[in-house]
Amino acid sequence: MTLRLDVALNERSYPIFIGQGLLDRPECWIDTIRSNQVMIVTNTTVAPLYLERIRLALTGKQIATVILPDGEQFKNLDTLDQIFTGLLQSRHNRTTTLVALGGGVIGDMTGFAAACYQRGVDFVQIPTTLLAQVDSSVGGKTGVNHPLGKNMIGAFHQPRCVIIDTDTLNTLADNQLAAGLAEVIKYGLILDLNFLQWIEANLDSLQARNPAILAEAIRRCCEIKAQVVSEDETEQGKRALLNLGHTFGHAIETYSGYGSWLHGEAVAVGTLLAADLSQRSGWLEKSDIERIKRLFLRAQLPLTPPPAMTSADFMRLMAVDKKVLDGQLRLILLRQLGDALVTEQFSTTALAATLDAAILDATALATQALDT
Amino acid sequence: MTLRLDVALNERSYPIFIGQGLLDRPECWIDTIRSNQVMIVTNTTVAPLYLERIRLALTGKQIATVILPDGEQFKNLDTLDQIFTGLLQSRHNRTTTLVALGGGVIGDMTGFAAACYQRGVDFVQIPTTLLAQVDSSVGGKTGVNHPLGKNMIGAFHQPRCVIIDTDTLNTLADNQLAAGLAEVIKYGLILDLNFLQWIEANLDSLQARNPAILAEAIRRCCEIKAQVVSEDETEQGKRALLNLGHTFGHAIETYSGYGSWLHGEAVAVGTLLAADLSQRSGWLEKSDIERIKRLFLRAQLPLTPPPAMTSADFMRLMAVDKKVLDGQLRLILLRQLGDALVTEQFSTTALAATLDAAILDATALATQALDT
Repeated sequence: MTLRLDVALNERSYPIFIGQGLLDRPECWIDTIRSNQVMIVTNTTVAPLYLERIRLALTGKQIATVILPDGEQFKNLDTLDQIFTGLLQSRHNRTTTLVALGGGVIGDMTGFAAACYQRGVDFVQIPTTLLAQVDSSVGGKTGVNHPLGKNMIGAFHQPRCVIIDTDTLNTLADNQLAAGLAEVIKYGLILDLNFLQWIEANLDSLQARNPAILAEAIRRCCEIKAQVVSEDETEQGKRALLNLGHTFGHAIETYSGYGSWLHGEAVAVGTLLAADLSQRSGWLEKSDIERIKRLFLRAQLPLTPPPAMTSADFMRLMAVDKKVLDGQLRLILLRQLGDALVTEQFSTTALAATLDAAILDATALATQALDT
Repeated sequence: MTLRLDVALNERSYPIFIGQGLLDRPECWIDTIRSNQVMIVTNTTVAPLYLERIRLALTGKQIATVILPDGEQFKNLDTLDQIFTGLLQSRHNRTTTLVALGGGVIGDMTGFAAACYQRGVDFVQIPTTLLAQVDSSVGGKTGVNHPLGKNMIGAFHQPRCVIIDTDTLNTLADNQLAAGLAEVIKYGLILDLNFLQWIEANLDSLQARNPAILAEAIRRCCEIKAQVVSEDETEQGKRALLNLGHTFGHAIETYSGYGSWLHGEAVAVGTLLAADLSQRSGWLEKSDIERIKRLFLRAQLPLTPPPAMTSADFMRLMAVDKKVLDGQLRLILLRQLGDALVTEQFSTTALAATLDAAILDATALATQALDT
């Protein structure tokens, strides 16, 4: 069975296909590729698993391939340039289509390359990680990191379609699955309490990779994301809610050196920090925090920041967040579970207390680890 | 006197201001800058001349500066990254404005940095070369070069305004003035025979830097460009006409190594090649070619490609031109003077003859130079 959702963006609208075995059923999606030239961009982990199947699915087209190293530490301008070099060496012109085959890093870089090559060409997303399937492949945010800030260089560039073959999750490493679950849980927390309850009820099945349950989680996440993106493509308002935990999370990723934390892991810790600050701001209950923490723990996600990271590190790195306006930090906080807001209405004292408490927890955990 | 033209692009519309001493009269244009943060991007040649005056004009704002090396050879991703580093070090956020102070290279790179920084911020153009004033600062084409092809990486990103202070031409080197004249002549050739005649009549005054005559040439070029860009912002059709001579010219620039030819010089030779092919295709008269050649000669522009460059070099480098569609090269040719078209309707034999003749001329010129 193949499910189709649509991201409604006028002339930039596109379908998301979700189903088992979609890689081997190009008849479902091949018409969304308008060009004869296609350039598959993937990485050294995904290529041995799926590249040949995609090449087969694209039989008849003029296919070129670029295989990048795997990891967030390669999401930069230098690696991006390898895509441009491949395109020029293969003489791809303004009507080519780039195919992003991989996780969020591949999707973000391929989309950004498509936004910039000859000032803009088509691309399609074939996400192969849970995180990319539920979040980063949908909505047209593309880009690379800068050593001083994550995702600081990029473009809004919508794909022509998103092809989610849920079978690809069978080859996913456990920590990658957990990282994806962090984003799944995020959707429940910001906008849909019922979905949060559903996740709590179905977490074991998700972790056991039950195909029907995974497909349902992906469907609901894509549905929420498509709706939010349709309303606010370039993040002038509501779309920022999707970044719950991301300001803290990006600081952790930048601090640790890209690639040492998975994005979803950093988002989990960031979400707990946002929840803690929400509680200190008088919104969430302590029991809500415990409930989120329990869920992340079950999902095998980290709960505390890197032990050596200080409040000053957080403040310095968060100062360049894309949501900063006129020097004023804005954060996504939770009014209650399933109801998020973008706000600068939090006290700096409360923020400092949140960070200090988390750092204390991290230190305690590190000491405990040393003791055992 | 300040003249104002408008580029009509709905919510992306913006004014072009043309006048003497505009750098010192910020009251004319300061309202187009919406932010408190501004980042001036300039180069080592222009900074000593105009940077302090711009800083003064922007008094009261939070000003940061990046000074790049001067030359087309620095128009690449590495130099672009210096702009991002400067922005992040100064903690500029999504509401910042970049100010491009310099020629076409600075304008293209600053515009592209603005297109990509935090997925898009404002920028204004303060072009200080004739070429940038009549052409590259207007219309939102931004980008950098790739070793395998010129302007292959970029974005359409419109400035908030273009500020043309004609006084800045007083400090311009002679070869830079000539390079700008190549683009001025281009406008006459493609769309306006009357303007071409006006240029022929006024070339001496233009070369003598008569302020009123220069201002009139700039006004007419910007008027034509604004009109064309309003009709076809992303070059789906008519806008391509503005690229007369550019396919050949880009091949010369890429072949020679960026920076050894000025862009306008390469465009002059490219325009002659396009004119020659137009004549071989049965459109232009031989006398038309002579007329264009005479004008370029008077303007102190080169007439022949680099002597060592072969037809094969041209064909290889032109194969990645942005106007190529499905492997088919398309060129801007002249039906008659003042009337250009985009076409793939030329014989490859005629193109080969055009290139061979030009290469023969170049070789003869080189031999002659050796003999004398």
